[in-house]
Amino acid sequence: MNTASTNTPQAAPSLAPLVALLAGEMEKVNARIIERMASDVPLVPELAGHLIAAGGKRLRPLLTLAGAGLAGGSPHAVGLATAVEFIHSATLLHDDVIDESKLRRGRDTANALWGNDASVLVGDFLFARAFELMVETGNLSVLGRLSNASARITEGEIKQMTIAGVPGTNADDYLDVIRNKTAILFAAAAAAGAEVAGANQTVIDAAHNYGLQLGMAFQIMDDAMDYSLSSEAMGKNSGDDFLDQKITLPLIIAYGDGTDAERNFWQRTIGEGAFADGDFDTACRILDRYDAIDRSVTEAEKYAGAAAAALDRIADQTNTGRTSAITALLDALSEAARFAAHRQN
Amino acid sequence: MNTASTNTPQAAPSLAPLVALLAGEMEKVNARIIERMASDVPLVPELAGHLIAAGGKRLRPLLTLAGAGLAGGSPHAVGLATAVEFIHSATLLHDDVIDESKLRRGRDTANALWGNDASVLVGDFLFARAFELMVETGNLSVLGRLSNASARITEGEIKQMTIAGVPGTNADDYLDVIRNKTAILFAAAAAAGAEVAGANQTVIDAAHNYGLQLGMAFQIMDDAMDYSLSSEAMGKNSGDDFLDQKITLPLIIAYGDGTDAERNFWQRTIGEGAFADGDFDTACRILDRYDAIDRSVTEAEKYAGAAAAALDRIADQTNTGRTSAITALLDALSEAARFAAHRQN
Repeated sequence: MNTASTNTPQAAPSLAPLVALLAGEMEKVNARIIERMASDVPLVPELAGHLIAAGGKRLRPLLTLAGAGLAGGSPHAVGLATAVEFIHSATLLHDDVIDESKLRRGRDTANALWGNDASVLVGDFLFARAFELMVETGNLSVLGRLSNASARITEGEIKQMTIAGVPGTNADDYLDVIRNKTAILFAAAAAAGAEVAGANQTVIDAAHNYGLQLGMAFQIMDDAMDYSLSSEAMGKNSGDDFLDQKITLPLIIAYGDGTDAERNFWQRTIGEGAFADGDFDTACRILDRYDAIDRSVTEAEKYAGAAAAALDRIADQTNTGRTSAITALLDALSEAARFAAHRQN
Repeated sequence: MNTASTNTPQAAPSLAPLVALLAGEMEKVNARIIERMASDVPLVPELAGHLIAAGGKRLRPLLTLAGAGLAGGSPHAVGLATAVEFIHSATLLHDDVIDESKLRRGRDTANALWGNDASVLVGDFLFARAFELMVETGNLSVLGRLSNASARITEGEIKQMTIAGVPGTNADDYLDVIRNKTAILFAAAAAAGAEVAGANQTVIDAAHNYGLQLGMAFQIMDDAMDYSLSSEAMGKNSGDDFLDQKITLPLIIAYGDGTDAERNFWQRTIGEGAFADGDFDTACRILDRYDAIDRSVTEAEKYAGAAAAALDRIADQTNTGRTSAITALLDALSEAARFAAHRQN
C-alpha cells in the first residue's frame, strides 16, 4: 500500500489517504481486536491472533470508521469496526477450511497449523464475539444490517460451492455470488458506520451503495489477479482459484468466446479437476488470447465508477456546513474506489 | 418420550407434560423454522431441513417458551425459541464436522451426505439467521445473553478439543467444558424467554439457574449413556466418545480409582488412540468395576435437584396471583428436571 509512488502527482491510486485519515481510530480498533479475542482457552487468542496479526488491508473496518466519520463520528464506531473485522475473520477461517488453503497473506493458514477443527470453532467464536460487540452499540438496526449481511455471505459461499466445476456458468450467477460473499459486507460495514453515527437515510443509503460497488470492484480484481500475479505479489498461491475449480469472470469471458478445443480444456480442468502439468500456464495463455484479464478489469472499473458516483450523493447532502474533515474523507474514499479497480502489475 | 408408562402413577419422569403444555406454540416454532431456513440457494433448506426434520427433543426452544410462559407469555417467544434452535442446530452441524460423525439421531449426518464444506457453511447460515430472528424481538438484553452464550459454547468445544486424549483430566475441567458447551445455552434459552416476556429479575435469574443445572444434568447423562446404551437406543453410535478420545465423567471416575494396568489401558486407548478389537467392551467392564455409570448418574441427579430448587424461587415470586397455567408449567419443569437425570436403561 505505502509505495513511494504515492508521493508523485501521477501516483497510482492508493488506500494511503484513507488509512492516514483514520490511523488514530484504527489503532483503537487494533487494540480492541486484541482485547476482545481474549479467552480463558489459550488456543482462541493464539489462533485468532495468528490470523489477525497477518494484517491485510483492514478495508472493512476502515469503511465502518469512514461511514461514521461522514456523520461526524460516533463513540460506537471503534466497537462496530471491530465487530465487522471479526465477522470477516470468521469467514476467512471457515473459507480456508473449505478451500483447504495452506497459504494466506504469505503465511501458513490457521487450519494448516492448528487443524480444521480449531479453525471451525475459533471462527464460530469470533462470529459470536462480533455479535456481543454489536449489542454493546445499543443499536438494533445496525445489528439487523450485519446479521443479514452474515446470512448472505454464507448464501454466497454456498452458491459459489454449487457452481464450482461448471465452466459454462453465466456472468449473472458469478456476480450474484460475489455480491453476497463480498460486496454485501462492504456495504453493511459502511452503512452501519454511518447509521451508528446518526447519519440521515440518504447518507446511509449512499454509504451502503458505495460499499456495495466497491466490494464488487474489489472482488472482481481479486479474482482476475489470481490468474495474473505471482504468489509472492498476491500473498497467497496464484492459480488457487483454477485448482479449486472456481468460476470467476476471466474464465466466464474466455469460455464464452472460446473454441470447442478451449472449452474442452476448461471442461477437463475446471469442470472435472483432471489437472496436468502446465495447465495453469495454458489457462493464462487462453485468457490472454481473449483479453480476459483486461476485460475483467474494465468491468471492475465500472463498479469503481459507480462507487465514486455514490459519494456524490453524500457530498450533496453534506454540502451546507461540510467540514474539512468530511471533504478529506470523501476525497480519500473516492481514491479508494479507483484503487479497488487498479491493476497491481 | 411418549411412553405408555407416563399414564401410570409410578411412571418414570418424562418430558411429556412439558411437551403437551407447549405443543401449540411448538407447532408455531416448527413452522417458523421451515419459514426461516428458506433461501434462494436450494442446498440451504435441503441440508438444514435434513437436520431439523430428524427432530430430537427440541429441549432448548421448549425452555424458551416455558421461560416466557412463567411471565405470562410474549408475542416474541416463538421467534426467540426458533433462534435458540437455530443456534443449537448450527453447533450440531459444526460438531459433526469436527467429530467426523456419520450418524445422529439414527440418521446419516449432513456432513456424511453433503460433505464437510456444506455443513460448515449451512451452520454459519443458521447462526446468522438466529441473530436476524433475535433482532426482530427488539430486545437488546436478550441478544446480549444469546451472543454471549454462543461465544461460550465455542470456548467449551475448543477446551473439549484441547483436553481430548488426556485421560488424567480432572473433573473440574470436564465440568467447565460441559457448562460452556451445553448448560450455558440451556440457561440463556430459559432466561431469554422469561426476559422477553417481561419477568422480574428474580424470575429471570431463577430461570437461568434452572436451565444451567438442567443442562449439566442432561450432558452428564448423555455422556454416561454413551458407554451404556445400544446404538439403537441412543440414535447415535454408542462408544463414539471412547473412539473420539473424549474425556467424560465415567472415565474420570474410573481413571481416578483405577489400577496401574487400567490406567495403561486408558492411556493406550483414550490417550493414544491405539484401539484394538474388544477395547470398548473392556472399557465398559472397567467402568462397571468402579460403578462409574451409576456414580455419574448420581452426579447428574444432584444437578437435577438444584434445577428443581431453582423452580422454588420462581414459585415464591409468582405466589400471589399465580395462574393455573404457571402452576402447571412449574410442575412440568420440575418433572423435566427429574427426567434429565433418569437412566434410560
